[in-house]
Amino acid sequence: MNKQQGLNVAIVGATGAVGVQMLKMLEGSTLPIAELKLLASKRSVGQTREFKSQTIRVEEARPESFEGIDIALFSAGGAVSKQLAPEAAKRGAVVVDNTSAFRMDPEVPLVVPEVNPEALREHKGIIANPNCSTIQMVVALEPLRQAYELNRVVVSTYQAVSGAGQSAINELTEQTKSVLKGEKTKTDKFPHQIAFNVIPQIDKFQENRYTFEEMKMINETRKIMDDHTLKVAATCVRLPVAVGHAESVYVELGDDKDVSVDEVIELLSKAPGVTVVDDPEHLSYPMPVDAAGKKEVFVGRIRKDLDVKNGLHLWIVSDNLLKGAAWNSVQIAETLVDSGIVKLKG
Amino acid sequence: MNKQQGLNVAIVGATGAVGVQMLKMLEGSTLPIAELKLLASKRSVGQTREFKSQTIRVEEARPESFEGIDIALFSAGGAVSKQLAPEAAKRGAVVVDNTSAFRMDPEVPLVVPEVNPEALREHKGIIANPNCSTIQMVVALEPLRQAYELNRVVVSTYQAVSGAGQSAINELTEQTKSVLKGEKTKTDKFPHQIAFNVIPQIDKFQENRYTFEEMKMINETRKIMDDHTLKVAATCVRLPVAVGHAESVYVELGDDKDVSVDEVIELLSKAPGVTVVDDPEHLSYPMPVDAAGKKEVFVGRIRKDLDVKNGLHLWIVSDNLLKGAAWNSVQIAETLVDSGIVKLKG
Repeated sequence: MNKQQGLNVAIVGATGAVGVQMLKMLEGSTLPIAELKLLASKRSVGQTREFKSQTIRVEEARPESFEGIDIALFSAGGAVSKQLAPEAAKRGAVVVDNTSAFRMDPEVPLVVPEVNPEALREHKGIIANPNCSTIQMVVALEPLRQAYELNRVVVSTYQAVSGAGQSAINELTEQTKSVLKGEKTKTDKFPHQIAFNVIPQIDKFQENRYTFEEMKMINETRKIMDDHTLKVAATCVRLPVAVGHAESVYVELGDDKDVSVDEVIELLSKAPGVTVVDDPEHLSYPMPVDAAGKKEVFVGRIRKDLDVKNGLHLWIVSDNLLKGAAWNSVQIAETLVDSGIVKLKG
Repeated sequence: MNKQQGLNVAIVGATGAVGVQMLKMLEGSTLPIAELKLLASKRSVGQTREFKSQTIRVEEARPESFEGIDIALFSAGGAVSKQLAPEAAKRGAVVVDNTSAFRMDPEVPLVVPEVNPEALREHKGIIANPNCSTIQMVVALEPLRQAYELNRVVVSTYQAVSGAGQSAINELTEQTKSVLKGEKTKTDKFPHQIAFNVIPQIDKFQENRYTFEEMKMINETRKIMDDHTLKVAATCVRLPVAVGHAESVYVELGDDKDVSVDEVIELLSKAPGVTVVDDPEHLSYPMPVDAAGKKEVFVGRIRKDLDVKNGLHLWIVSDNLLKGAAWNSVQIAETLVDSGIVKLKG
């Protein structure tokens, strides 16, 4: 492919847990990439990565790095995004930012392509990728909202450590080895031991006693669904799992919606990005070990509430690094190109 | 203490994960035990256990084993209870059964001493100890019910493997080692790999797509609280944790009950068997690693729902082998003696 005829794409945070997956997702993508720039902080400079049989050197992410870039995928933490995303946008790149830096900015579309692709048209240079736990939930709930309306969502999450980066996976591994040897564990990334434990806190506590992760799920869901009065309640919990977030979701549909499980299964089976795994007879339901490495959102344990006729319970699992981050970002990039919002040169 | 002046107590299933904890709880109990019999299946016969500086030989559990026994604590599986609990009762023993064999039998009281000790008076020889995940929830919810009524409970559990016995702990350990070495895992006790995974199934699936564990939480909560129309919904999930169940609980209090978090904390702080651990500023909340080995039910992450004025969220953790099983059984035995329902001889 000639350099002039495709897209120039940059990954910022290319050596992190999500950045590595972005590279992988781009490799499998239909995007006509002319040039791929891998950007990171100073200490990763000089490392190389393979991309479609090319070897690419990691460069330091600086404002000038974005000259000539069409699409820049950011996943290097909120501080880097706040500093460099506007610089990239100023230079004509469309930024797809995977941090929480701009998600609630009214000028910035917050997009899950299965749910609100039309919001991309309003971008002013920066598009935000939602929080991992939010993405998989809205992909599963949007078809229900379209068909039956939503009155209420109560979610309890079961989140993998990789949401906190590669160092968090290492911490889980090291702590697990220590516990098995009967040794004391060292904590660094997490506030408490995570090996063989459960921590009911993700991100910082807010004034209202909710964590920031919980408020992200509440506020981002409303923004993506463009329903600012939707009742969403969240409890976010970290588990000793490396990859794959799970969610126990209770949903109340519109007041008079007394739908059967079969109807729900049929609806979700046809929904974009959703795979139904729900066969109690064969002990089949979504689990993190099965979802890891896959792009879909898996839904199972679908059942009606036993007391509330419009109540429904769902179990939603997805790879938090893929649909929850890297894949959703690359999917946004693909949608930008497919819909002509970002035009190919040449 | 003279043999004639105390209680003759038997543990059935004395070598199992719960049985071992029953022995420990009896050791710390105020019960005036004259003789302790350790009963188990044939293959454990000949093993010995220490109890208050005595060495006790494990005997085979048979109908005749219960001659002269005042209180028999059963935890050897439902089949053993179904066969031997009536034999023990026939011989004058009061049975405290930790299996699900008799829990929903209308003739059998289902008791958590903090909640419904009065039900013990109606026993006809057998008393049932509720399911572990039910016990810790009702201990935390009963004070709320007394003070504010309960309209609705939606619980998602985070359950440790030890609920499935010692062999389940061994399976988690062995699978964890295999995963760390990059080897294939072997599954036996669980239907899928549990190491670094999450299994949204505990016990068998029922016709209505709920698991038996979920139906236990629903039906047992209603029976213990003696409120057969209470709306309870449960999703029960197994985690790679050895000991300590956690629960994310959404509660709707009585219609007009708009209570403050401070009120709820004050109420629960005074409630029997409950310890509030809820200090977001110091990242303090209940966790399995902290609850393991302790008798209390720990409650934290107490916060109001942001949309529903009578809605409340709680995080409840307890040692599933202690308050969830062995300690609740021994506590029932203590209550039987303290209230004169079982009388001391001599």
